[in-house]
Amino acid sequence: MEDIISMSYGNGGKKTSKLIDEMILPHFDNEHLNALGDGALLEVQGKIAFSTDSFVIYPCFFPGGDIGKLSVCGTINDLLMCGSVPKYLSLSLIIEEGFKLSELEKIIQSISETSRLAGVKVVTGDTKVVDKGHGHGIYINTAGIGERIEGLLLSVDRIKKGDKVIVSGSVGNHGIAILCARENLLQGSLNSDCTPLNEVVSKITSFGDKIKIMRDPTRGGVATTLNEFTDKMKFSIELIEEQIPIDPSVRTACDLLGLDPLYSANEGKVLTIVSSEIAEELIIELRKIEASKDAAIIGEVVDYATSKLILKGGLGGKRILDKLTHDALPRIC
Amino acid sequence: MEDIISMSYGNGGKKTSKLIDEMILPHFDNEHLNALGDGALLEVQGKIAFSTDSFVIYPCFFPGGDIGKLSVCGTINDLLMCGSVPKYLSLSLIIEEGFKLSELEKIIQSISETSRLAGVKVVTGDTKVVDKGHGHGIYINTAGIGERIEGLLLSVDRIKKGDKVIVSGSVGNHGIAILCARENLLQGSLNSDCTPLNEVVSKITSFGDKIKIMRDPTRGGVATTLNEFTDKMKFSIELIEEQIPIDPSVRTACDLLGLDPLYSANEGKVLTIVSSEIAEELIIELRKIEASKDAAIIGEVVDYATSKLILKGGLGGKRILDKLTHDALPRIC
Repeated sequence: MEDIISMSYGNGGKKTSKLIDEMILPHFDNEHLNALGDGALLEVQGKIAFSTDSFVIYPCFFPGGDIGKLSVCGTINDLLMCGSVPKYLSLSLIIEEGFKLSELEKIIQSISETSRLAGVKVVTGDTKVVDKGHGHGIYINTAGIGERIEGLLLSVDRIKKGDKVIVSGSVGNHGIAILCARENLLQGSLNSDCTPLNEVVSKITSFGDKIKIMRDPTRGGVATTLNEFTDKMKFSIELIEEQIPIDPSVRTACDLLGLDPLYSANEGKVLTIVSSEIAEELIIELRKIEASKDAAIIGEVVDYATSKLILKGGLGGKRILDKLTHDALPRIC
Repeated sequence: MEDIISMSYGNGGKKTSKLIDEMILPHFDNEHLNALGDGALLEVQGKIAFSTDSFVIYPCFFPGGDIGKLSVCGTINDLLMCGSVPKYLSLSLIIEEGFKLSELEKIIQSISETSRLAGVKVVTGDTKVVDKGHGHGIYINTAGIGERIEGLLLSVDRIKKGDKVIVSGSVGNHGIAILCARENLLQGSLNSDCTPLNEVVSKITSFGDKIKIMRDPTRGGVATTLNEFTDKMKFSIELIEEQIPIDPSVRTACDLLGLDPLYSANEGKVLTIVSSEIAEELIIELRKIEASKDAAIIGEVVDYATSKLILKGGLGGKRILDKLTHDALPRIC
């Protein structure tokens, strides 16, 4: 094999077959994918969740992961947030002419490892090649199917005054790590938190209908996700600044760069709103899990007249956290 | 709204919301999508088909369709080929900075119309923006879920000597139309055949287990798809050149450009291998449907020692049709 991708890898002919047979299939051995039809034939429970994301992150290798790992975590975590157990993934690659086969191999390896870790099978896929100057190395789309967990009632409509807002760990790591990687800043000290959230969500959902909503605060961060909630709620949310877990390295980078970690993307965190009576117990349980060892109650639902997201500072001052209007940081996922 | 896409449409903030709320959602009104969670909650039969494709076609508007129509037809047709009835689609857009909002609107409109025509709902999605020079207008990924039809036994293993090879209409139109559009050749005379195949496939599958396999001969055309079959078969396939339907305009363009319509992509055709006893009846039925009015038996399964695809010419001469090794025509889907 040559060591870079040429246009003929995308024509559906001999090289496309070679790429798929030699580089992709060996990593995803399962009966669904091996059949190599136009799609996969599956059996699922009747109630499913279905989600998709395209990943255009730059650089495609970053501290704590790569675009392959991210493209699995992103869709798996979305399926988990819907209250489902992720089962199957599709994988579609848009590769730029000239991309190194050795880098593609690493990315495929990473997709394979992450999907095994998260208990999902890659069952169908597609590969396209675009000419040089019309891509950026590689873009990846994944779509996923999860089987819904019984007994959950996830809906913004169920959120009430007094409910607690919980985050499963330190905020802002992914976005700040990508920015630092892109600009060659603070190298070595900051990793993306990119990880599949199966274990964390399994613990949260064991509390059944006491869980009102779950969301992974990716693009736009915690502040953007909570704004999406308050947009649809009759209540407001008040966050207590000093209770929000932020890693020292993220805080340092944010201070240096003038960024707000509350608007920075996370790829391995859950934001959930829960009934107050189970909040403390949930925190104790979450802290037993490595991926949520810094879980914290960061705020609560209040009944101010207009639905807003409010941040209460250490000295008692309050400010509104609105939606982003500018480009904090493009292409972080 | 400004009239081009800027990076801030991709940051997950106010402009992303505005784009989704004002330009996308109004076209796809359904309870699944309107919930706007991290994914869609669906109920399906237990046996499903799952397929995905990314579309990177250039130009994104072409005679007979656009990238929006194609991105729906492509995935729907794949689901149909698996022997399923398409139900749900995901839609993921990768838009290049500077893309005109008016063109995006046309594409969304086209996705909406085609999905309505094909009886599928767009239930979940994603939008990303990449900086200028790292895309080509717009790339689209769709993934789809179909409910499997009972009573089918689609497998290359069931193909036997004497089975007939049927194509649902003239071959090569899509690939040649795109090439002509790209090079400003033969304008006005050649349209892509891009269309959803629901009605055609519904007729074919009404013949139950007499249908051995179905495939839509897209990238690489009829010759590539049949090679994928013979690779896995114990038999060979012999095509009769004069029985293969080819539109005069496609033939003229192929003669002028030195191309073979058997290797040119189709986006609205089915290739199926069926028991010989139902072949004639199936052709009569297919010709009653507009999208398959030129359906024809184009060859049969023979028991030559090595599994090959053979073309028998008008004067009795035979040649092997192998897989593509060069770039006939990149980025036609």
